[in-house]
Amino acid sequence: MAYSWMNSKSPFAKARTVPVDSVTLKDDFWRPRLEDLRSVTLPSQLTKLEETGHLHNFRRAAGLEGGSFEGLVFNDSDVYKWVEATALSSAYWGDKEMFRLIGPVASLIESAQDEDGYINTYFTLDKKQDRWRNLRDNHELYCAGHLIQAAIAYHRAANRLGNPEEGGRLLGVALRLADHVVKTFGHNPGQTEGVPGHPEIEMALVELYRETGKPEYLRQAEYFIDARGKGLIGGSPYHLDHIPLREMNEITGHAVRALYLLSGAADVFMETGDAALLAALERLWEDLQRKTYVTGGVGSRHEGESIGEEYELPNARAYAETCAAVANVMFNHRMFLITGDSKYVDAAELALYNAALAGISLDGTHYFYVNPLADSGKTRRQEWFECACCPTNIIRLLSYLPSLLYATSDGKIWVSMYAKSEATVTVSGVEAEMGKADVRIIQDTDYPWDGRVKLRVKLASPTAFELRLRVPAWAGKAEIIWPGGKAVALPGNFFSIRRTWRDDAVSIRMPIRVRLLTAHRRVAEDTCRVAIARGPLIYCVETAGNHFDPRDLAVPGRQPFHQIKQRISGKMITSVVGGGFLLESPANTYAELGKATKAVKTRVKFEAVPYYAWGNREPGPMAVWLLRSKYFP
Amino acid sequence: MAYSWMNSKSPFAKARTVPVDSVTLKDDFWRPRLEDLRSVTLPSQLTKLEETGHLHNFRRAAGLEGGSFEGLVFNDSDVYKWVEATALSSAYWGDKEMFRLIGPVASLIESAQDEDGYINTYFTLDKKQDRWRNLRDNHELYCAGHLIQAAIAYHRAANRLGNPEEGGRLLGVALRLADHVVKTFGHNPGQTEGVPGHPEIEMALVELYRETGKPEYLRQAEYFIDARGKGLIGGSPYHLDHIPLREMNEITGHAVRALYLLSGAADVFMETGDAALLAALERLWEDLQRKTYVTGGVGSRHEGESIGEEYELPNARAYAETCAAVANVMFNHRMFLITGDSKYVDAAELALYNAALAGISLDGTHYFYVNPLADSGKTRRQEWFECACCPTNIIRLLSYLPSLLYATSDGKIWVSMYAKSEATVTVSGVEAEMGKADVRIIQDTDYPWDGRVKLRVKLASPTAFELRLRVPAWAGKAEIIWPGGKAVALPGNFFSIRRTWRDDAVSIRMPIRVRLLTAHRRVAEDTCRVAIARGPLIYCVETAGNHFDPRDLAVPGRQPFHQIKQRISGKMITSVVGGGFLLESPANTYAELGKATKAVKTRVKFEAVPYYAWGNREPGPMAVWLLRSKYFP
Repeated sequence: MAYSWMNSKSPFAKARTVPVDSVTLKDDFWRPRLEDLRSVTLPSQLTKLEETGHLHNFRRAAGLEGGSFEGLVFNDSDVYKWVEATALSSAYWGDKEMFRLIGPVASLIESAQDEDGYINTYFTLDKKQDRWRNLRDNHELYCAGHLIQAAIAYHRAANRLGNPEEGGRLLGVALRLADHVVKTFGHNPGQTEGVPGHPEIEMALVELYRETGKPEYLRQAEYFIDARGKGLIGGSPYHLDHIPLREMNEITGHAVRALYLLSGAADVFMETGDAALLAALERLWEDLQRKTYVTGGVGSRHEGESIGEEYELPNARAYAETCAAVANVMFNHRMFLITGDSKYVDAAELALYNAALAGISLDGTHYFYVNPLADSGKTRRQEWFECACCPTNIIRLLSYLPSLLYATSDGKIWVSMYAKSEATVTVSGVEAEMGKADVRIIQDTDYPWDGRVKLRVKLASPTAFELRLRVPAWAGKAEIIWPGGKAVALPGNFFSIRRTWRDDAVSIRMPIRVRLLTAHRRVAEDTCRVAIARGPLIYCVETAGNHFDPRDLAVPGRQPFHQIKQRISGKMITSVVGGGFLLESPANTYAELGKATKAVKTRVKFEAVPYYAWGNREPGPMAVWLLRSKYFP
Repeated sequence: MAYSWMNSKSPFAKARTVPVDSVTLKDDFWRPRLEDLRSVTLPSQLTKLEETGHLHNFRRAAGLEGGSFEGLVFNDSDVYKWVEATALSSAYWGDKEMFRLIGPVASLIESAQDEDGYINTYFTLDKKQDRWRNLRDNHELYCAGHLIQAAIAYHRAANRLGNPEEGGRLLGVALRLADHVVKTFGHNPGQTEGVPGHPEIEMALVELYRETGKPEYLRQAEYFIDARGKGLIGGSPYHLDHIPLREMNEITGHAVRALYLLSGAADVFMETGDAALLAALERLWEDLQRKTYVTGGVGSRHEGESIGEEYELPNARAYAETCAAVANVMFNHRMFLITGDSKYVDAAELALYNAALAGISLDGTHYFYVNPLADSGKTRRQEWFECACCPTNIIRLLSYLPSLLYATSDGKIWVSMYAKSEATVTVSGVEAEMGKADVRIIQDTDYPWDGRVKLRVKLASPTAFELRLRVPAWAGKAEIIWPGGKAVALPGNFFSIRRTWRDDAVSIRMPIRVRLLTAHRRVAEDTCRVAIARGPLIYCVETAGNHFDPRDLAVPGRQPFHQIKQRISGKMITSVVGGGFLLESPANTYAELGKATKAVKTRVKFEAVPYYAWGNREPGPMAVWLLRSKYFP
């Protein structure tokens, strides 16, 4: 197991991620998505990167062909993100052929680097004099961060696939760039003070520190966190530059920028243990919960792709950019690693299964950039976007996915998410050879459709460690049975089983049933409405499969729901079928109370599908939040 | 009565406006606003126009001083709008001193005109080569329209005040500009095809046709209507250029642009009687009703200051630009003149008393650009804006205001709005000398606070004509008593009294009571909420005067409300006092139905004030739509 990822040595993390290739998915939910990623999505994105000039920009910057820069200033980052995801995927599948796809792209990147380590084709091509001149808007440090992450992933995948030399090539580019950044930015003489307008490099530098052990990269990430709030990029709340991060009480501004910044700060904390930083992250997380959609989406305003005020969560006008949902998973996953608190996994799981997964079509070929929670039918999945950040972010998330299932810490294995799979998790701090043991864990489950999980543990020799099983907050009390024990575990916790394990089985039964959710009264659009949830999934009602406009559907608060398994676009889903009323009322926008003609109610059966699956059939209106029929007598 | 306004001869109008100076307001509602306009607002705006470079731009363009253009590309229009409003105001007050304030500004405008008639200081100063190059974005025709309207108003005011020569000066500038526009744009050889990105000139050209009788101006206005929808400015629905106006079924795009276009088209119809145009206006009006706030505001999106989908009417994120409310009055007033249908006066009155009037502070010194229907307290009135279109539009509306009270047509006088006032209205088509008679109408009322109106009619000699009294749609059945007659009139109509009038009295009793309004179920944010209305006024609840956050207030659907007269910022208002509950509930954004802790309810008394008066006391949260307590048991 040569491939490792993220915080494997971080001193201030309570839990550590496992490598993507330590888990083999066997399920019908994620495995087909990862197969599509490998066979359809990643190859088609490479074609798009070629067609839209992304790769030509590198060739032009390297002098390999003529022409000027094409596309948006941050287009290089799309290439890096594709490299990162493809590297992770090839490591996951152990697929050398897939890995070799990256080689020519890595060469292009290599050839476009300037002698001083700087690399950004937009500036190298036409605007050398403008390098680092506008950190707020020009995304140079953002692109640099994605290059560094791509290089690390490529390096790790190369090691995993027995080709360390090839991996060193792109890592060399990243190190030269990182050294250039370290030299350029800071408060020492000869340096420029500055912070990125779009955070990203903070995560990358911490990871580069983890990869190389060189403390200057960690210090540089810390610098970028600490220099924020001094007005270096204009001092606006939009850019989270109005006050120092440690003093912030409110998460503001551009949703993706904000969540990337918090993710980077979380990475810094894992290495430094700065209590003031963690306190700020916890405060901002609390605030974030008042600004997060029921789907885990973040970003309430189209204006500036930004976060709104607390409880400002419009449905049809939600922005909820796919990138922000991906970032919400990233941030919450890090907060879980820091604290071991299952509430962060709940939040990560919610964003993963709903807001983020909605960002890619069921067949892996089309994308949502904006993810509304109600729609007139005008929002459609696209093959690509001029700003392609979302397609190239969802592939990163999917390629990380296997590593989200487990975490480890001294003497502990954390089962954070459930999926039919086989994994080998190394638990350290145990009485065994080298102080660690490889534990084979076989999950048998139909999660997320069913809450029963059978977990088989296999070890070379009996070993004492603590198995921590997550009971999601959405679950009822979970019944857990292990050799010689049985308990009812409360939801919203990790349930611990400390014992000496041998080849044993554990069964977990999390009651999954249809739940109706209500929103805080301050969420103006959700007053007197309910949303359907089942397990970690949020449901929606589409005209597709229903033949009516779901915005006119009113549902009773209590009723026996049925579940039906069906395929949409080749993927198996469980839909929820219930009864309700279709409202038809006069078209007057306003009426006097008591004088309004009552709505005509027609009894209907309705089908709800998981939110992530919407927009995969014929276009039409969609709604997550449904009117409650008792308010429309 | 030398001063006349608008459609006095329009062949396809059922009703015609009366001159502003034919009405003398005597009331406590409008008269103080017009006094403030004269003594505070107009002088202070002139100072602002000087301080912000608006007038310097004219001096610079005329070569009277150095320097380059200052401010936004359409800044000239603010000067023209000030001229128009000041001219109308001086005509209303018969104030020659006020009129003389305009002279130097008129001279500046005159001196900045190019030899070929073109005038726009932005282009004349630095960018002569870019004249008429980007009609979509550069607002040249918009500015031209405002200059023409200003010149007409100045000309009419000058005539009224016995100084026709002075008025001819600016009208000359307008005619040279209009001739230049007529020469430049069209489909004849040597002309350029084009339409304005921001409509406005259509209204101006029709008015110039009315003023001069020259048909080329009307034809040019028709051209600008007819050439739309051919993609001349990009073909977007945002610019209402996607299809011809006569084919449109939906009102889309920038709210002010849209409503100005419809107003201009309405003006064209009044002169041409083109049935397809009127049919389109009626369809678009119907659609507009689904996109209009309960305050009469229009514009649901901050993005592009634009109209949203039908029933998309968010409260806190309403844009509802003051200019759009002004334009809503303009459009509806024109539709009333065309059709004689009181529903258009209802809509105009709603926008006038609520969305538009909110745009200026009670003391006439501060402005709202955006008019939300709920607020956290962050929206504050400003002294001025970089884009000053709203302050300079509300002064136009207020200066027009007296003319909105009455309209005439052959043998008819229409009383469209009520206010304590004295007017002399000339009714034509009657058996009298010259076929017309001056009718003195004295309104005694405390409208809009009270629905009782006593109307005295005085004539030099008995004359037969029809008096049409508007019974607003919001009123209950109105009791109307006239000499020898008595009737109960249904709301939403003009009630006709045909008789031979002498010195007679008519009394109208429109029941004004507190009404609770509900919204169509598709208006997502208003579900299970009510808005308080009384007469033509929509109310809101502010923290000011209440000491709680009105967004937490829930009110019963039935209760005895009290009314209290009080002063805010020197202006008398009638507030509505009622009882309700303050909700306090757990901060969780989402909860499971049935598992949520019920809200703690504290009984409170609340004070609601007219929406137009909000934001004039200490800043704090505000809400128009209040939760209904029955849904929070």
